[in-house]
Amino acid sequence: MSNAPVLLTPGPLTTSARTRQAMMLDWGSWDRDFNQLTASLCEQLLAIVNGADSHHCVPLQGSGTFAVEAAIGTLVPRDGKVLVLINGAYGQRLAKICKVLGRAYSTFETAEDQPTTAADVDRLLGADRSITHVALIHCETSTGILNPLLEIAQVIAHHGKRLIIDAMSSFGALPIDAREVPFDALIAASGKCLEGVPGMGFVFAHKQSLAAAEGNSPSLAMDLQDQHAYMAKTGQWRFTPPTHVVAALHEALLQYNEEGGLPARHQRYAANCKTLLEGMAALGLRSFLPAAIQAPIIVTFHAPNDPRYQFKDFYERVKAKGFILYPGKLTQVETFRVGCIGCVGPDGMQAAVDAVADVLREMEVLDI
Amino acid sequence: MSNAPVLLTPGPLTTSARTRQAMMLDWGSWDRDFNQLTASLCEQLLAIVNGADSHHCVPLQGSGTFAVEAAIGTLVPRDGKVLVLINGAYGQRLAKICKVLGRAYSTFETAEDQPTTAADVDRLLGADRSITHVALIHCETSTGILNPLLEIAQVIAHHGKRLIIDAMSSFGALPIDAREVPFDALIAASGKCLEGVPGMGFVFAHKQSLAAAEGNSPSLAMDLQDQHAYMAKTGQWRFTPPTHVVAALHEALLQYNEEGGLPARHQRYAANCKTLLEGMAALGLRSFLPAAIQAPIIVTFHAPNDPRYQFKDFYERVKAKGFILYPGKLTQVETFRVGCIGCVGPDGMQAAVDAVADVLREMEVLDI
Ligand SMILES: Cc1ncc(COP(=O)(O)O)c(C=O)c1O
Ligand SMILES: Cc1ncc(COP(=O)(O)O)c(C=O)c1O
Repeated sequence: MSNAPVLLTPGPLTTSARTRQAMMLDWGSWDRDFNQLTASLCEQLLAIVNGADSHHCVPLQGSGTFAVEAAIGTLVPRDGKVLVLINGAYGQRLAKICKVLGRAYSTFETAEDQPTTAADVDRLLGADRSITHVALIHCETSTGILNPLLEIAQVIAHHGKRLIIDAMSSFGALPIDAREVPFDALIAASGKCLEGVPGMGFVFAHKQSLAAAEGNSPSLAMDLQDQHAYMAKTGQWRFTPPTHVVAALHEALLQYNEEGGLPARHQRYAANCKTLLEGMAALGLRSFLPAAIQAPIIVTFHAPNDPRYQFKDFYERVKAKGFILYPGKLTQVETFRVGCIGCVGPDGMQAAVDAVADVLREMEVLDI
Repeated sequence: MSNAPVLLTPGPLTTSARTRQAMMLDWGSWDRDFNQLTASLCEQLLAIVNGADSHHCVPLQGSGTFAVEAAIGTLVPRDGKVLVLINGAYGQRLAKICKVLGRAYSTFETAEDQPTTAADVDRLLGADRSITHVALIHCETSTGILNPLLEIAQVIAHHGKRLIIDAMSSFGALPIDAREVPFDALIAASGKCLEGVPGMGFVFAHKQSLAAAEGNSPSLAMDLQDQHAYMAKTGQWRFTPPTHVVAALHEALLQYNEEGGLPARHQRYAANCKTLLEGMAALGLRSFLPAAIQAPIIVTFHAPNDPRYQFKDFYERVKAKGFILYPGKLTQVETFRVGCIGCVGPDGMQAAVDAVADVLREMEVLDI
């Protein structure tokens, strides 16, 4: 098993043996011991954003997208209108969710290397008073670009509007403080920067907004208000929880705190990102984003120009050396991506860079 | 870990060490190896119902209820009408899903110890021509009652209507043959009779019906047509799969086939059920259902009359002896439930009966 490749992908990612080991036990989902595990999980998650006073943590079965859809379906009233800020595939998905759910929405799109600005949002909210909610991707994982959350959140609050944050790939690694950033919902999942295994998401939902959301949801399974109300009353999940995934995330959170919490996690990922960027630059590989807007989560690199470079072949060869990369998600430019997150440190990133160097040499890719 | 209690609950249940061990590896969800795992999983699942020619297997992230809601939302057109057959909590949930999704529906409810009959369904379909779909619980896990699937399915086909089967707690243990039982959708999940861990469901969707279902779903995350179309094209799940849960289910299916497939699984559970019923009867504990309609999945027992019996105390004491029971789900009669499914055999069931005997003695419960 120790020969398994390191996942340099933005979730699922490489977890620690201790986290996986936590899945070796079967839990009764109705049992008090499991209820305590869930309660401890939610408490630890809320602590990361200093949200215990203002927000409830509502865990949800399924992938991150399920939690995003649940947040929009539950917290945006049927007569609400969402302004969706887009600079990549996950922003596009937010808009698609609004469309499928039948919620009114408008979009504002910038180029994939252009963060949305607070000034943009100020102007848009001024121009359309019918907007009730703004939905934003914190770190847009399509490229790795970071949007200026705090500034945008302040403008939204100033307009008296509500904010829904998809922080899937940033939560736990980039600081977000619920006492400073006003938000109605912040969404993340088990298998990202917390280094759990995939299988559940969670939403920090503003207490008053959640209480007012009864009957909003067009779904039973993804009704966060109902999920929370039942859990508050019984300590249990409404429907069978992914018990092993929950246990793994709980164990991953213990390690998160032992490592030093968010500052330590951020520092390690930043060191991973630096090692990666410097190492790849030395090979001539150019990153797609300028450093100022590059989050230390995932890095997009331009594909080499050389016709001998083919992503598939490159991928397989790097995999054979022990590292799983990620294809690019851009439509215009040929790229590939390398994650900086997961149970890996700068040494591991250097080894990945070395593997890439070897592979480019083997493939005789000269024109980079 | 080997001291962990045996789960005598109808999912999550006790899994084999080999199944849990399959979760010790992190898979890249985009990688070819994982795509092959998914394809092999779907193929093995379809084989269990002889459904490869007629149905697609569409796996879905989340608990079983997510898959049930997805099946109704995807396969029942917006102008369809569902007849929901109810004799317990899961039938009630089907009706609630129709209501929340805004699908027209009517219900037919029998007592919790009364199976729906084919004659009932014949009469109901004759009386309301606007019904397009019938939704049925195969084994209603609230009590353990078995509804006569084949007869009901034939009547529905005779009327030219479509059938949606929630076979959550029966699939894999009770025979269902897609070549004999006409159905549009059959729904089950990883953590039931296949003895995987919870975290994903799957729907066997009739090929033509699924192809015709584009645009039906009121949800993005739970759109089975979209999930299937994407998987058929790319081999991948649309959104991050619960990789470890998938790997565990795949490993559980290998063991299922090694054990002898459905006949062997059925036989073991039937032997578990017999051991349980006989052992409990010897203690004076009466089962709620008559034998003829009792599925070998979960057994509901009347609580003892003795005032010294309190379920909470009883539960904790039996748990201390290594077995996790389940509370009753009936509203009228006080009961408790014991599952017959999971990685356990008749010896294990006998040990559970012995534990119950010891506990009743300790508690001085005499009037049973
Ligand atoms: C920013 C962002 N949003 C949403 C998602 C979707 O999550 P999932 O694939 O778990 O549904 C991802 C996944 O990487 C993401 O990075
Ligand atoms: C018949 C039936 N339907 C639906 C469900 C719901 O499944 P889940 O709890 O995984 O959502 C169950 C769970 O036991 C069940 O037994």
